[in-house]
Amino acid sequence: MVRSWASQGFVAVDWGSSARRAYVVDGDGRVVAEMEDAAGALTLDPDAYPAEVEALRARFGAERLLMAGMIGSNRGWREAPYVPCPATLPDIAAQLLWVEPGRTAIVPGLSLLDGERADVMRGEEVQVFGLATTGSARVCHPGTHTKWIDVEDGAITRFQTVMTGELFALIKRHSILADLLDAPAEAGPAFARGVEQGHAGGAIGAALFATRAGVLLGAAKREDAASFVSGLMIGNDLLTGLAGVATGTEIVVVGRGSLVSLYAAAIEHIGFDTRRVDGAQAFVAGMRALAEFIV
Amino acid sequence: MVRSWASQGFVAVDWGSSARRAYVVDGDGRVVAEMEDAAGALTLDPDAYPAEVEALRARFGAERLLMAGMIGSNRGWREAPYVPCPATLPDIAAQLLWVEPGRTAIVPGLSLLDGERADVMRGEEVQVFGLATTGSARVCHPGTHTKWIDVEDGAITRFQTVMTGELFALIKRHSILADLLDAPAEAGPAFARGVEQGHAGGAIGAALFATRAGVLLGAAKREDAASFVSGLMIGNDLLTGLAGVATGTEIVVVGRGSLVSLYAAAIEHIGFDTRRVDGAQAFVAGMRALAEFIV
Repeated sequence: MVRSWASQGFVAVDWGSSARRAYVVDGDGRVVAEMEDAAGALTLDPDAYPAEVEALRARFGAERLLMAGMIGSNRGWREAPYVPCPATLPDIAAQLLWVEPGRTAIVPGLSLLDGERADVMRGEEVQVFGLATTGSARVCHPGTHTKWIDVEDGAITRFQTVMTGELFALIKRHSILADLLDAPAEAGPAFARGVEQGHAGGAIGAALFATRAGVLLGAAKREDAASFVSGLMIGNDLLTGLAGVATGTEIVVVGRGSLVSLYAAAIEHIGFDTRRVDGAQAFVAGMRALAEFIV
Repeated sequence: MVRSWASQGFVAVDWGSSARRAYVVDGDGRVVAEMEDAAGALTLDPDAYPAEVEALRARFGAERLLMAGMIGSNRGWREAPYVPCPATLPDIAAQLLWVEPGRTAIVPGLSLLDGERADVMRGEEVQVFGLATTGSARVCHPGTHTKWIDVEDGAITRFQTVMTGELFALIKRHSILADLLDAPAEAGPAFARGVEQGHAGGAIGAALFATRAGVLLGAAKREDAASFVSGLMIGNDLLTGLAGVATGTEIVVVGRGSLVSLYAAAIEHIGFDTRRVDGAQAFVAGMRALAEFIV
């Protein structure tokens, strides 16, 4: 009898751009050890990976290593070619990049080509497969590059990236609004006003300038600016992210940190129900589901 | 008989953030001398202005100096309080900031408070009054902060700023698209596709990420990226800038450089007629019209 990695246990690594997180998963699906550090793919030369991987193996006394995220990009260890959508777990398992056969594998990302529209992702797909959705769902994975992902009957059928977090960071660091955006964003009334304006459409550059002018003319409070602009950017994101969603479709918000709460608040504010899922738990569940197909 | 500045001649100065341009206008409205340099308001301390102004006076052998733009802001020489809209030339003439009575004046900017929406401008209003519009017009003044200005029967009634140029510059300098945007934007097919996508609404952060993914997956040409993104940002701007414009309204595009051509091309692409006006000519005409009300 051939036993899957899931039944034998393995180490699951979420190796992103700026951090990596490793989970030792036993044959019953329990996480028996974990670690997190700042050795992300953007901090490592390709030559550094063999020693890094052996150090992980030694630390955890483990043999099987399954790694996902930016480690499989052209700025990581080895480039794992994208699997085109629609994609299922068996599709992904069949296209793992085996660095050492039977021992060290990199999970490929997903790509989408839909007419003229192109999109890519690496890492978020694992969390989506860990969500235990039934039927169809739209999944929101907030971040520097927020992903909106459609799941239907166990397949990722479509997705779209909106670089909302990156734009917000650029505005916060470098724009004429920079000195207004120091405070953390909070999901209160100013955030809700921003969500409504962003979701109403129009050019975000107009509401951004009006934020500064409002403070200058005494028509808006300086301390509301960060929450308003955060709401504005997220509300605008929802125009694309929730486009075409049928009433009653489950909206799952998965990830880490305060951005999950802000996105969930914004989605609820415009009238959808959400389910929030911790990104680390979803990642482990997704890697274990994938490991069922690895022998 | 009291003679106006317009009939006596004066020096008109467009004193912006990063440059200043001076025009010696004679009593017949002719420009008999001019200069341009980089001594913009952001490069000068408030203390430096008296000597700068006397140097201009000496250079041109002129007595009367009328100055507009950022020189009148809190980062310029003296702050000239905004004139609220709707505003006419006599309103502005009545609220000049006289640094030296009868001799040295700063033109105030305009402000708008419309419910919760606030907006400000300094300098563009002079060009608008120089356009010789009849009836009503919507004026587009492209730039770092593009202004859309409504004129009705000689008054500026409303306006809206969209910080499109600033957002484009941030994306070009600091975003993950930076290495794709070196080429100058041109008003060809890629620009037109961008205008259409931007004007269709939705989150611009989606089309921006798709631009990168498209080049990565071979679905888009790297050399088209700058023109596409320029079109995208301008098309999105038009959503706000041309909102509520009645069919047949004249759209005047005034300013300098290639941005005027790109905005005019975008506006025409979505079905409006435009009239293009040189910003320097409009500035001189506007200052002369204002000087009719100064004695």
